[in-house]
Amino acid sequence: MTDLLGDMRRTHNCCDLTTAQVGQEVVLMGWVQTRRDHGGVIFVDLRDRTGIAQVVFSPEVNTEVHEKAHAVRSEFVLGIRGTVAARPDDMINDKMVTGAIEVNVDELRILNRAVTPPFAVEDDIEVGENIRLKNRHIDLRRPRYQKNIIARHQATQAVRGYLNSKGFLDIETPFLTKSTPEGARDYLVPSRVNQGLFYALPQSPQLFKQLLMMSGFDRYYQIVKCFRDEDLRADRQPEFTQIDMELSFVGEEEIMAIAEGMVSKVFKDVLGVDVKAPFEHLLYADAMDRYGLDKPDLRFDMELKDVSSIVETSGFKVFADVVKKGGMVKALNAKGCIDFSRKEIDDLTKFVSIYRAKGLAWIKVKENEWQSPIAKFFTDDEKKALAERIGMEPGDLIFFVADQPKVVNESLGNLRNHLAEKLGLINKDEFRFVWVTHFPLFEYDETEKRYQSLHHPFTAPLEEDYQHIETDPLKLRSRAYDLVLNGSEIGGGSIRIHDRAIQERMFSALGMDKEEYEEKFGFLLDALESGAPPHGGIAFGLDRLVMILCGMPSIRDVIAFPKTQKASCMLTDAPSEAGTAQLNELALRIKKIES
Amino acid sequence: MTDLLGDMRRTHNCCDLTTAQVGQEVVLMGWVQTRRDHGGVIFVDLRDRTGIAQVVFSPEVNTEVHEKAHAVRSEFVLGIRGTVAARPDDMINDKMVTGAIEVNVDELRILNRAVTPPFAVEDDIEVGENIRLKNRHIDLRRPRYQKNIIARHQATQAVRGYLNSKGFLDIETPFLTKSTPEGARDYLVPSRVNQGLFYALPQSPQLFKQLLMMSGFDRYYQIVKCFRDEDLRADRQPEFTQIDMELSFVGEEEIMAIAEGMVSKVFKDVLGVDVKAPFEHLLYADAMDRYGLDKPDLRFDMELKDVSSIVETSGFKVFADVVKKGGMVKALNAKGCIDFSRKEIDDLTKFVSIYRAKGLAWIKVKENEWQSPIAKFFTDDEKKALAERIGMEPGDLIFFVADQPKVVNESLGNLRNHLAEKLGLINKDEFRFVWVTHFPLFEYDETEKRYQSLHHPFTAPLEEDYQHIETDPLKLRSRAYDLVLNGSEIGGGSIRIHDRAIQERMFSALGMDKEEYEEKFGFLLDALESGAPPHGGIAFGLDRLVMILCGMPSIRDVIAFPKTQKASCMLTDAPSEAGTAQLNELALRIKKIES
Repeated sequence: MTDLLGDMRRTHNCCDLTTAQVGQEVVLMGWVQTRRDHGGVIFVDLRDRTGIAQVVFSPEVNTEVHEKAHAVRSEFVLGIRGTVAARPDDMINDKMVTGAIEVNVDELRILNRAVTPPFAVEDDIEVGENIRLKNRHIDLRRPRYQKNIIARHQATQAVRGYLNSKGFLDIETPFLTKSTPEGARDYLVPSRVNQGLFYALPQSPQLFKQLLMMSGFDRYYQIVKCFRDEDLRADRQPEFTQIDMELSFVGEEEIMAIAEGMVSKVFKDVLGVDVKAPFEHLLYADAMDRYGLDKPDLRFDMELKDVSSIVETSGFKVFADVVKKGGMVKALNAKGCIDFSRKEIDDLTKFVSIYRAKGLAWIKVKENEWQSPIAKFFTDDEKKALAERIGMEPGDLIFFVADQPKVVNESLGNLRNHLAEKLGLINKDEFRFVWVTHFPLFEYDETEKRYQSLHHPFTAPLEEDYQHIETDPLKLRSRAYDLVLNGSEIGGGSIRIHDRAIQERMFSALGMDKEEYEEKFGFLLDALESGAPPHGGIAFGLDRLVMILCGMPSIRDVIAFPKTQKASCMLTDAPSEAGTAQLNELALRIKKIES
Repeated sequence: MTDLLGDMRRTHNCCDLTTAQVGQEVVLMGWVQTRRDHGGVIFVDLRDRTGIAQVVFSPEVNTEVHEKAHAVRSEFVLGIRGTVAARPDDMINDKMVTGAIEVNVDELRILNRAVTPPFAVEDDIEVGENIRLKNRHIDLRRPRYQKNIIARHQATQAVRGYLNSKGFLDIETPFLTKSTPEGARDYLVPSRVNQGLFYALPQSPQLFKQLLMMSGFDRYYQIVKCFRDEDLRADRQPEFTQIDMELSFVGEEEIMAIAEGMVSKVFKDVLGVDVKAPFEHLLYADAMDRYGLDKPDLRFDMELKDVSSIVETSGFKVFADVVKKGGMVKALNAKGCIDFSRKEIDDLTKFVSIYRAKGLAWIKVKENEWQSPIAKFFTDDEKKALAERIGMEPGDLIFFVADQPKVVNESLGNLRNHLAEKLGLINKDEFRFVWVTHFPLFEYDETEKRYQSLHHPFTAPLEEDYQHIETDPLKLRSRAYDLVLNGSEIGGGSIRIHDRAIQERMFSALGMDKEEYEEKFGFLLDALESGAPPHGGIAFGLDRLVMILCGMPSIRDVIAFPKTQKASCMLTDAPSEAGTAQLNELALRIKKIES
């Protein structure tokens, strides 16, 4: 029936061909990567998903076909029938998978023509991202992006294979659902049947997966789209993909073991890399103390040192006052960086100001003295104590930030990563995993003057801390855990509350009265007293995981059709205007937009 | 860390236990199905995902545990440690997988308590669907629903395994996208960043999967949620799941072979049933002629017979006039149904009136005469011709509908299914597949006075018909195909247009001017001239497929959290009201709703 293809049927992909097929008739189909005329013969590099094979149109093989091949241009779509031949020895190309063979064509079908592409279908090109995203169908033809999308496919298959083998059930949860508080803004979907009411697109399937545990499904997973209407400063997408799972009758250990097995399988299947499990563990408090961040990159040392107790009583008022006011002073030792220029130090000062550090004090450690604007404020004893605490050696450059803990940790933690990158301390081939555990259950929101969940309100508190829930909420640690890889959080989860009374006290601690939480979460509370098993789970950000697997700088590089920072699709031009009739059906009116 | 579970860790699922484990210590966790006191001993049927095991609390094993077990009620969540024992011969229950053993408990943890459930966790209960959906977490505990959700999991795994093995890549397409014309209403998602603009939730990933072919990915699939804001008369859901695929460089044959292989794998893996492939083929025109529907149930015969040419010249004006006005008369032979009562015939008349048939003429065929209000209008020759065309035999009951073809086919096609059900003609264990092909490309929309695509505007026309596109669009047949199983359409697809010029003529034929189609589909047209390979695909409705696999009457039975006919979630109470602040951010106002 396929008139255009006629009786032509592909027998091989381009990179299936080796010298083993020499003499064999084959049919290939693909795109013209390049066309070269050489001595009256036309050479075409034909490209498909697997790579490139050289096909040759020679008047000696078929004059008619050779004549037709003159019309061929870059990105034309061809079907060819020909015979595999070994290349002459001096024409063998060791860099190509198919470099030892070529195909002498005696039938050519031009399946489609192509206008000249806006950029070459090659990896090393310089094109603005907007042009690439506007022509994403061409961008995705580039070998790097073909590899990325295939790696993503391999990763999800590895995940599914592993979880299926461990008794997990792939169960779908709704997309048109009720708003739940995950900390970000929901995307709303107006209802037509119930005018004036809205669905929310899920930020995660959190409550549904908990309900599935209460339904007795025991082990659930899903690779599923989630939605957050956030301002897309960082490398984020309004829709992203989560590997989501939940287990009944388990504690942290079992969940972590499953997660480690799954991640190991992904690295093995996609990269052939053996990951060392079990992974290291780090308490949240230790992570903050030593690295300043709850997602520390452990591929290099350079730990932060708290020098508050030394400087508090010193003559350097700037440091001493900060500590006295409940702040802290921490130091970072840039080993061997004594030769940093004034400009380099200024740039680093600018860098930490992003994290609201008001300054970056420094000391260059020479053989017998400190070169530093602040050296003079310290006594010899204080200098000795500092040198010891910080591990100073001649040649080192020491940085200090003095401020409230949040600012100190964030600025020095990020400076630590920044310096490691600058100094080439990072082994890019290493994959260093660490579990961060024992997070605070709550944080205090200064703007709203109330406690908020650091993870979400369904996270179980550590039993030993629970007694303080009404008296000192900030003291409570949670049974949450994050999996950090090379300084990126790739997964996070927790043991959940499975007791109605505890869940109610949690809602109260978050400032909800009974009426409010009954209205929002009555169905969950009812389910918790219907026979809810102990349960917990974890979710992984698939986009970020694949980005790291592929060594890409942005998650946009591993998403077939990503949105821009302005949440638009450059290719299809979404979002776009809605018709008046449809808005009427939804009982909606657009307010006049200020310009 | 898991304080509640302590050192108790599940060793087995309930139905893992057989007499092979007799004497072994095991730990089980699950729900209390029933508790019985018998001779001072407490017997609990403990339930988990795999089924039920009997656990026994006897004072002779452990008095303390026996005492504690008195508190246990239905749906309590228990962890028990005990020893497997063979049941006494007279207590063996052959109907239970674990009917030959029981577990003598010497450690009991009540992991959670439960209030009395609103209905019993059993298959054969009579409860309204609203109560079930409101308590879906309990409803899903019932064995039938556990089986359905597990079958769905098995089906998707079978699909993935098969397609992976055939070189398909699982690639995700966007959910926040641009409205495309699939014939139904889109769900809209207002944009906050681009106030006044809207995303549409995809009715299918149609254009993205075509773009992936133009990107050279060759074979794509996805099991993906799609959305249609339709009035939910029939057994439909606002969000439903599609097994979606697209292939390059293929014709109908390859796509059908893949689809047949995939469906066979699903039936084998889920039901252990061998499906006979390749499937039958039926032209759309023949399906309509013989069965009145484009999704005929071939598990029984009872074909419609067109008697227009016989009755046109007859003295029965009602029939003759209909035919003269471009209508038709068809007959359905209900073999052996001569004893149908007046009431039964009236009911069937009412039934066909749903499909706008204005009447249902009938003839009871006796040995030597017709009993019928219309018998007198026909000559002996006409009677003979009718008897022959319809295959009348004594004992038969013949029904006629005379009207425009659409009404005749729809009413008699559905009457055919209805009668087969009523007469028990359907073998419920049979799975009868048929490909319906050569659909009309267009249909004429009387209301909008223009042509519309029967499938979608990207469907390729049959090459031999294409010449008539401007002169006689209704003559064009398409390269679309539906897969029908037991009278349900479970899948449908087509070879797509891969040529810009043809696609533009298609849009013109649908009444769009250049400006309109450039604005809506400019990106597709550009992509079509960027080197688009010949391609086609198919999509299956997963919900319906699993429903048939599980022998369920409704797709709601195979969806974990379905919506009601009013598109609401009874469990979470979605949709619900949105906050004013959020509506302001979206620049939206709700119009006053008429009450």
